[in-house]
Amino acid sequence: MEATKINDETNMGSTASKVEGGAPHGKPEKKEKERKDQKAAAKSKGEKQSQQAPKKKSGEPELIGITCKKSEDIAEWYQQVILKGEMLEFTDVPGCYVYLPGSYKIWDFIRAFFDARIQKMKVKNCYFPLFITEANLQREKDHIDGFAAEVAWVTEGGKSKLEKKLAVRPTSETAMYSYYSKKIRSHRDLPLKLNQWNNVVRWEFKHPMPFIRSREFLWQEGHTAHLTEQEASKEVREILDHYAAIYEELLAVPVVKGQKTVNEQFPGAHYTTTVEGFVPSVGRGIQAATSHCLGQHFAKMFDITVEDPNQEVKEGEKRNKLHVWQNSWGFTTRSIGVMILIHGDDKGLVIPPRVADVQVVIVPVGINAKTTDADREKLYDEVDGLRRQLEDVNVRVECDFREGYSPGWKFNDWEMKGVPLRLEFGPKDSANGVVTTSRRDQAFSKEKGTIPVTDLATQIPSLLEKIQSDMYTRASEEYASHRKVIRSWTDFVPTLNAKNVLIVPHCTGGECEDEIKKDSSGHQEGGEVDARAPSMGAKSLCIPDAQPEPIAEGTKCINPKCGKEAKMWVMFGRSY
Amino acid sequence: MEATKINDETNMGSTASKVEGGAPHGKPEKKEKERKDQKAAAKSKGEKQSQQAPKKKSGEPELIGITCKKSEDIAEWYQQVILKGEMLEFTDVPGCYVYLPGSYKIWDFIRAFFDARIQKMKVKNCYFPLFITEANLQREKDHIDGFAAEVAWVTEGGKSKLEKKLAVRPTSETAMYSYYSKKIRSHRDLPLKLNQWNNVVRWEFKHPMPFIRSREFLWQEGHTAHLTEQEASKEVREILDHYAAIYEELLAVPVVKGQKTVNEQFPGAHYTTTVEGFVPSVGRGIQAATSHCLGQHFAKMFDITVEDPNQEVKEGEKRNKLHVWQNSWGFTTRSIGVMILIHGDDKGLVIPPRVADVQVVIVPVGINAKTTDADREKLYDEVDGLRRQLEDVNVRVECDFREGYSPGWKFNDWEMKGVPLRLEFGPKDSANGVVTTSRRDQAFSKEKGTIPVTDLATQIPSLLEKIQSDMYTRASEEYASHRKVIRSWTDFVPTLNAKNVLIVPHCTGGECEDEIKKDSSGHQEGGEVDARAPSMGAKSLCIPDAQPEPIAEGTKCINPKCGKEAKMWVMFGRSY
Repeated sequence: MEATKINDETNMGSTASKVEGGAPHGKPEKKEKERKDQKAAAKSKGEKQSQQAPKKKSGEPELIGITCKKSEDIAEWYQQVILKGEMLEFTDVPGCYVYLPGSYKIWDFIRAFFDARIQKMKVKNCYFPLFITEANLQREKDHIDGFAAEVAWVTEGGKSKLEKKLAVRPTSETAMYSYYSKKIRSHRDLPLKLNQWNNVVRWEFKHPMPFIRSREFLWQEGHTAHLTEQEASKEVREILDHYAAIYEELLAVPVVKGQKTVNEQFPGAHYTTTVEGFVPSVGRGIQAATSHCLGQHFAKMFDITVEDPNQEVKEGEKRNKLHVWQNSWGFTTRSIGVMILIHGDDKGLVIPPRVADVQVVIVPVGINAKTTDADREKLYDEVDGLRRQLEDVNVRVECDFREGYSPGWKFNDWEMKGVPLRLEFGPKDSANGVVTTSRRDQAFSKEKGTIPVTDLATQIPSLLEKIQSDMYTRASEEYASHRKVIRSWTDFVPTLNAKNVLIVPHCTGGECEDEIKKDSSGHQEGGEVDARAPSMGAKSLCIPDAQPEPIAEGTKCINPKCGKEAKMWVMFGRSY
Repeated sequence: MEATKINDETNMGSTASKVEGGAPHGKPEKKEKERKDQKAAAKSKGEKQSQQAPKKKSGEPELIGITCKKSEDIAEWYQQVILKGEMLEFTDVPGCYVYLPGSYKIWDFIRAFFDARIQKMKVKNCYFPLFITEANLQREKDHIDGFAAEVAWVTEGGKSKLEKKLAVRPTSETAMYSYYSKKIRSHRDLPLKLNQWNNVVRWEFKHPMPFIRSREFLWQEGHTAHLTEQEASKEVREILDHYAAIYEELLAVPVVKGQKTVNEQFPGAHYTTTVEGFVPSVGRGIQAATSHCLGQHFAKMFDITVEDPNQEVKEGEKRNKLHVWQNSWGFTTRSIGVMILIHGDDKGLVIPPRVADVQVVIVPVGINAKTTDADREKLYDEVDGLRRQLEDVNVRVECDFREGYSPGWKFNDWEMKGVPLRLEFGPKDSANGVVTTSRRDQAFSKEKGTIPVTDLATQIPSLLEKIQSDMYTRASEEYASHRKVIRSWTDFVPTLNAKNVLIVPHCTGGECEDEIKKDSSGHQEGGEVDARAPSMGAKSLCIPDAQPEPIAEGTKCINPKCGKEAKMWVMFGRSY
């Protein structure tokens, strides 16, 4: 259901794909060498680091942090962050990844959040088969045209060839709508609202990128049928609001709501609405989730009809058949990648508190060679007491009692994993009746705070909420400052190259979009070409709901070659 | 992970497979004809029914109930019950089914229940890819031998042949243990406890049966690694207890806990523990879920080792490598089928209250041609008030205000869907300040109760719990009465044919089991052959934890051809 284009020249994608193939779990030789280089690099930085961090314990395992800056090589940075942060593992199947507990837990939070909302809308969960017959898949022409290039086919079962090959679902429209045709007999069967939480496979793209663009991913796909267009449209928007809420309220990721231009909508859809995110480090948009009104297109192909209940009929007269109005909407594990790209920093992951499996880690500090066993035990008991206090108010907390590691090592380890809040507690804190706090989202500020032990139960939950809202606000302000309203073509490419997305008056025409894409890419003929500029052109991301102002009469499309009237403000940008 | 044998001559299976193939969603011509026959049969019974049921409304759609008795043709009965009860739909992919909201919701309840328990055990959820390379799948020989015949292979992606074909996971041992080998570096990384909720595919069996034996199914698969056998064994049993709890506490299904004989264990496992259910109508056992200790078998193949932390070593001496101890355990959507087979009756599904999406349905009654609009509205408002009372105490309740259907039609409809408790409420009830109750599990008793409206909030929840425990108790007593302790071979076949499972002194040897299977089947040579007896022989179901008594010294194996000493009481039976 993602209308993702599959052949974008994505720098990140292509870099991430470096590690594809080869030995299982991302250990190809080349990568091994890179690791060693990183190790060396880390060592050379060693002295500098030790001035700030607490002393290294003798014999403690070396911890190699993120060895590259997000601003310098985001592809390498991303890969290190997700691997070292234990979010994901590579496998020996290119483009298919392991979602480790670190990321799967986030998916669980998303699932619970969204599921509660759609339950209220009377959507029911169900499960349709993974395999779809070729005949069924091909029933909607635009649909199969859109997916034919990326379908994985099962042709053998056990030791024998199947009589008819089976598609591994790339999405379930065609799997489900035969059932809809059977189930929907009367207007009384409407609305029919089903949802699946499942896995789908889209095989044929060249640049997989963990979470963002993978050959198998997890998602929910909602499929509903309604009597009227109005009802269907209302739901499309309700769902889009829920998608925006997942991003903004759970993942602390700002999004722009809008509608796709015809060029970018789901093949065969009546229209597609979308939430669009933004990755400031590279100045690119990223499609976050889409909610489609399919119109009556599939209903016609799958013969899903009811008799018109509102028609006035005379005795014996037959009622007209109406094709139902359908929606489909999907939210995928891509969201986890979006969150990582936006919030991660040079120390690793930064997880928003609401989706953090571990929200708070307590690290005992101030223990040294002179500390007696009894003193240490006393301190550990106190730390455990802090944990219980926090658990009682539903804070997800862990104590790091690991032996053989210095506090500094532990700090780095938890920072790499993105735990939102670290509490340090040593004999001095104990004497003062306080805990020392260190916010992950301010890991570079060196500022620490203290909270009286007696206030933990109230102050920690509110501090976590503060972290959550600060993360959102920061990202939101950054996104806003990179959404530039542009009225003239001369500003288009320079502003784009300054890592912005652009909101421009546009005719909403498809050919014009293609032209803009071409003319804003590094490959354009004539004009000024900046050798350092990314080669990718700008595509239309959406027609934002929040239009800067009404389009004044007589305003032309921003594309000077177009010459048509502008219809809407359209957001353009480079994009994942 | 289910050690299900795939070529059982299952009467139900083969009947269920009648509808495979042909048109989508189980509408082959033959089936259409059967439906018409049922329709006719139902009509001929019409008069009898109408004496009890409230009057049929003119113009109301015909409701065709379950037209065949569970005791007479369980295969046809099962199919009708799951289709008409809206638990499942057939598709045009043989052996792959749609889990409709009715059954998926039960799976959700199971998931929530079990997930909470394994979270407490510090098991983490994750997700590994659907596809496994052939090389990886083949790394454990017994394992691939066990699954080779039932693996579905992807050989094409988009329009091109894959270089190397990919297995659709039949289970994830081999997908996961490469990662385990990488992740587990030291005893500090142990235990490693991961679980997946996913879909798996096992292609090559001849008699699919909805829920019970399907080509794709949903399950959880837990995979853990431990330092010692003792730790691993403790977990195997904890998990088995949770599996038993899902059956007994949620699904009201009694099970017998035990260990599989070597013949029946998971290929490559150290040992397999199991919970075994029983379907009284056919007198057959049914494997309910299995929890395996894999020993160090996979650890050796996948090189999962740690240095022995407990070894006393001298300075400079290297520690010995230990292979970790592994478990795997799985619980599948088969459980839903087991529940249906055991509790369903001639009116349809009977869902235990704890897993019923709708626990209580309120049907307004006593409305007729003389009822004024105002009176009807008043009654409906009161019904809605009852609903709110119940929702306030977390009862899952629905009101049936559908127009154009008589109360009798609605009663039958909800009974077919298995809703545990029906409340009827009409003007008379209103005047008396009571609701009339009708328990689904006593649908044939005609007994109805009443509850004062003022007591609903307390009495309904406790009545639901009563229904739950009564359902369990009834099933448990029935199972117990069909577990016969048999000491002599002469009693074996007759007791088996009387729809029992047998607990017998046995040598636990594999060849002896095969012999028993042969000699207890309808095809045995010599001996008395009952032409009406099922052809399937008895296999060993488990070595029950609850042994009837210690095996007395000198007791021989029940199989007269065996002659060995009996080692344990083993449960034998025909089985799904």
